[in-house]
Amino acid sequence: MLNSITSPLDIKQLDIAKLQSLAEEVRTFLIESIQKTGGHLAPNLGTIEMTIATHYVFDTPNDSFVFDVGHQAYTHKILTGRFDKMHTLRQKGGLSGFTKRSESKHDSFGAGHSSTSISAALGIAIGNGINNNNSKSIAMIGDGALTGGMSFEALNHAGDSDADLLIILNDNDMSISKNVGAMNKYLTKLISGKVYSIMKSKSLGFLEKMPKIHKFAKRSEEHLKGMVLPSTLFEELGLDYFGPIDGHDLPTLIQTLQNLKQQTKPRLLHIITKKGYGLKTAENDPCKFHSVSPISSNSSNLPSYSTVFGVWLNNTALHHKNLIAITPAMCTGSGMSEFKKNYPKQYFDVGIAEQHAITFAGGLATQGLKPIIAIYSTFLQRGYDQLIHDIALQNLNVIFAIDRAGLVGSDGATHAGSFDLSFLRCIPNLTIMVPSNAMQMYQMFNTAFETNGTICIRYPKGTSDIKNYITDEKIPLGKAKIILEGSNVAIFAFGIMVKSALTAGKKLNATVVDMRFVKPLDKALIIKLASSHTKLISIEDNVIIGGAGSAISELLHQKNINTPLSILGLQDKFSEQGEQQELYDLYELNEIGIINAVHS
Amino acid sequence: MLNSITSPLDIKQLDIAKLQSLAEEVRTFLIESIQKTGGHLAPNLGTIEMTIATHYVFDTPNDSFVFDVGHQAYTHKILTGRFDKMHTLRQKGGLSGFTKRSESKHDSFGAGHSSTSISAALGIAIGNGINNNNSKSIAMIGDGALTGGMSFEALNHAGDSDADLLIILNDNDMSISKNVGAMNKYLTKLISGKVYSIMKSKSLGFLEKMPKIHKFAKRSEEHLKGMVLPSTLFEELGLDYFGPIDGHDLPTLIQTLQNLKQQTKPRLLHIITKKGYGLKTAENDPCKFHSVSPISSNSSNLPSYSTVFGVWLNNTALHHKNLIAITPAMCTGSGMSEFKKNYPKQYFDVGIAEQHAITFAGGLATQGLKPIIAIYSTFLQRGYDQLIHDIALQNLNVIFAIDRAGLVGSDGATHAGSFDLSFLRCIPNLTIMVPSNAMQMYQMFNTAFETNGTICIRYPKGTSDIKNYITDEKIPLGKAKIILEGSNVAIFAFGIMVKSALTAGKKLNATVVDMRFVKPLDKALIIKLASSHTKLISIEDNVIIGGAGSAISELLHQKNINTPLSILGLQDKFSEQGEQQELYDLYELNEIGIINAVHS
Repeated sequence: MLNSITSPLDIKQLDIAKLQSLAEEVRTFLIESIQKTGGHLAPNLGTIEMTIATHYVFDTPNDSFVFDVGHQAYTHKILTGRFDKMHTLRQKGGLSGFTKRSESKHDSFGAGHSSTSISAALGIAIGNGINNNNSKSIAMIGDGALTGGMSFEALNHAGDSDADLLIILNDNDMSISKNVGAMNKYLTKLISGKVYSIMKSKSLGFLEKMPKIHKFAKRSEEHLKGMVLPSTLFEELGLDYFGPIDGHDLPTLIQTLQNLKQQTKPRLLHIITKKGYGLKTAENDPCKFHSVSPISSNSSNLPSYSTVFGVWLNNTALHHKNLIAITPAMCTGSGMSEFKKNYPKQYFDVGIAEQHAITFAGGLATQGLKPIIAIYSTFLQRGYDQLIHDIALQNLNVIFAIDRAGLVGSDGATHAGSFDLSFLRCIPNLTIMVPSNAMQMYQMFNTAFETNGTICIRYPKGTSDIKNYITDEKIPLGKAKIILEGSNVAIFAFGIMVKSALTAGKKLNATVVDMRFVKPLDKALIIKLASSHTKLISIEDNVIIGGAGSAISELLHQKNINTPLSILGLQDKFSEQGEQQELYDLYELNEIGIINAVHS
Repeated sequence: MLNSITSPLDIKQLDIAKLQSLAEEVRTFLIESIQKTGGHLAPNLGTIEMTIATHYVFDTPNDSFVFDVGHQAYTHKILTGRFDKMHTLRQKGGLSGFTKRSESKHDSFGAGHSSTSISAALGIAIGNGINNNNSKSIAMIGDGALTGGMSFEALNHAGDSDADLLIILNDNDMSISKNVGAMNKYLTKLISGKVYSIMKSKSLGFLEKMPKIHKFAKRSEEHLKGMVLPSTLFEELGLDYFGPIDGHDLPTLIQTLQNLKQQTKPRLLHIITKKGYGLKTAENDPCKFHSVSPISSNSSNLPSYSTVFGVWLNNTALHHKNLIAITPAMCTGSGMSEFKKNYPKQYFDVGIAEQHAITFAGGLATQGLKPIIAIYSTFLQRGYDQLIHDIALQNLNVIFAIDRAGLVGSDGATHAGSFDLSFLRCIPNLTIMVPSNAMQMYQMFNTAFETNGTICIRYPKGTSDIKNYITDEKIPLGKAKIILEGSNVAIFAFGIMVKSALTAGKKLNATVVDMRFVKPLDKALIIKLASSHTKLISIEDNVIIGGAGSAISELLHQKNINTPLSILGLQDKFSEQGEQQELYDLYELNEIGIINAVHS
């Protein structure tokens, strides 16, 4: 059936039995296909029925669907004419793993990061109102994304508006890591029926069309007649609340959505799904199957930088009870599983809540503890103000372990860590370290742990080729290291760019420096080498604008040194998706790029 | 009495009558003193009793007080040994207008921005637990700050913890602008008694010590006996909820806090205060008296940049129904009062919710509307990820009207807009304009409104010396303008630095360029002038690191041009507080700085 669906219109003719077959076909296809291409498996298996029902009832692109995070939109892609491109998912030139406006008119709003959907869908809904357009706007958000503060800001606005907004809360009690926090407990309570919001009289008219629930509500209503009835948290915030209903029950989903389509006030439908639904292994371990790698990758035995961080945490915690590690819902991705198991009292998963994670660490630091925030570069953007205002300004002893810096590969532009050196370098009081390999990273964490102040260590996705990295060594603060002595050309390499710099340097008979620090910069060494060389090159896996090379550029002008400098790094555009190495080659952040820069 | 109080210990001996006199003395002092020094008047008049009661019951610095925003902490400053320095408030070298760790051991956590207090206090509380220390941690937060998503992230964590945390919710139904949103309505409902949380049985033991409320609760309890009782939103999130009580009633406050001190679980006390309490004019117009300027300032008739923005909005909306202006709770500060009155349907105050404001604008933009987000530079840090991920990446037609850029004067480092050029310049797809005066700013908004893409216009606090600025003119995109032709030295001036550049340029017989754009930079003009001059100077009111001068530095290296360049801007440290001009002079961002740079 899948081959015959070229637009959502094609499914509107189908009866329930056909729609159920369609769901099964999608499920079978996703299980096979994603294990080949890699991608987010479990979230998509959980949202097949929801997506089919929503497309059956509503009409994109006239109506707008905003998928939160966007990694659960594969069924949506299949139903909106992209089935034949699903094999290109997350590859260079292929379909994005998220929703993307430039990819389809059915993708109303792009995503990648969490908790943006209600804000965007509310903007669309209010925009529809202003345009006197009765199109519908629908946000589809998981319970994990609901804990991001931005979702609450949007609910606060939505509940006070009369926007024609439908929020579908897809509750699978599971974001990437196990869901945490009071909100999660509250939703569980809602589901288990301790809050009988559904009995509220305003819901009864709606419920009459749904006999089973109506009967239950009627009975309860008699019990409670004339009483002050409790309301849900969502109703307290001004939204009409409906549910919870089974998110894998297509007939109920369709009937409910048809009813909700008739309404025009801000409303929330609470559906319950099972992440990984239909694939037993994924249902049993949705965390593992959240995102799967393509078959045949991951063959190396080399340690990932995330693993190195996790090992360092684990080893250091053994002797340091003041070490506290914090993650905003990225326990496994950040390599912290082992640490979490061994040192549960020193471990905090605060949920998808980057802002809180950082200021919470600040509070801990004032009590003499040594908090380490494990955060992806791209998500640190979410906590930028807290880093500045709560940590750096007060010069608190907090370490930022910044993972997934530079290009991240198949996740593409939304997840690239391309800007961190620029947005961090301009902030006073920060120390910024960029390890060139696993062992140096370990040394840097040793160093940071013994050093006061606010320290950022940023490292890439992927593996280091050094297997034995555990060490007691530290490195001197602010000191770069010459790793190859040459003449004429001096190459200042930052982080993982050191490797390419070294191979290029050997061919060029150049001096190669492993800079190790972006801030403080080893100014003395740069000045010295600038006077003994005729050409300088800097290379980094960050945008050129305002990055590490830019720091050298500023220094040379400040010191009135006119040795030519070529700054290599990412150009001023959002990066593509593709294999990580493929992208580094595309942007010439490699040996060839360095050699070309010298010869040009 | 005030002179005799050198630490909070001094008030613990006082009886209720004395404490009430103390409150009156503080009130009288604040009214007189703040009108002299300038500062946040209304918020402080509303928190006098709360602060006295909290210091009476708890013991700082052993116990930690975390004031949200920190601008309501004047009474706290007076009671913690800083009375004799209150006349230096917000002046250079004087007391900060906010809490500041380096100023007093009684300031447990610094602030300035909103919605950080629960996160910081939770960190302190959990830190106390880890340290086996039974000190108390208390967050004091206004209802306006509660709408910031970060507060919700922190509540979500707190409610799921067993931290010894007390949150005092100071509800005055008024943040800087009139409070908005569903949360505000909900709190009002709580106060008006529609939610009888206080009757919950677990509260009854506590209430027995408070006869009046207990009597009421008892009566209600009989009514509701055996029923499913509703709970507050805070209880649904796992906190124990107490209140609401009168925040100006010292005996009740003290008794309640003494009871709450005995507890050890996360708990929230809801108090009701009146902003501006005790000063009729301030009670009647708390928005106007939120922050007052020192007597004798504000004498000029020159238009502030915020006013110019407001006038442009108002004039443009007349002919453009697709213009939508959004503010995160800064209506008056951003100059939007008139526009709000005239075009209520095109105006959105989303409350303290910078993240939501931006992505909401993105949603509007997808519907063909032209949203303009009015935001202070320092608060844009709060929405940095949304600017990147939701707006710039999708290249949506959104204008950022970035107010309070550069040095802001007496608010100091927490509010300085010193970093925006650096953190914006590195983001692809952005156009960044920096007006040098009111008329050019007006032209830039005209230009931006007719131009597609994501556009930032950043302008300072304070006034422009051009009175007649209304115009239909636009400016050519990416083009700088030579405003003085000279020889040898070329000065590239950005934004309001143009004025000093021009006076210096005349003395130096230099060429002076009003750069107008930070991005795209007018590369052709820079290259041309670099070849016809022997010395280049750039000047900006942003940190040097990664800023506008850094862009010129990168360009010169890219083009292998070795004309010397001096980059003038803010050094790599957080700025001081003081008069705005005083600070520009301190940092030599003036005529003298330019002349010195040429001669060095």
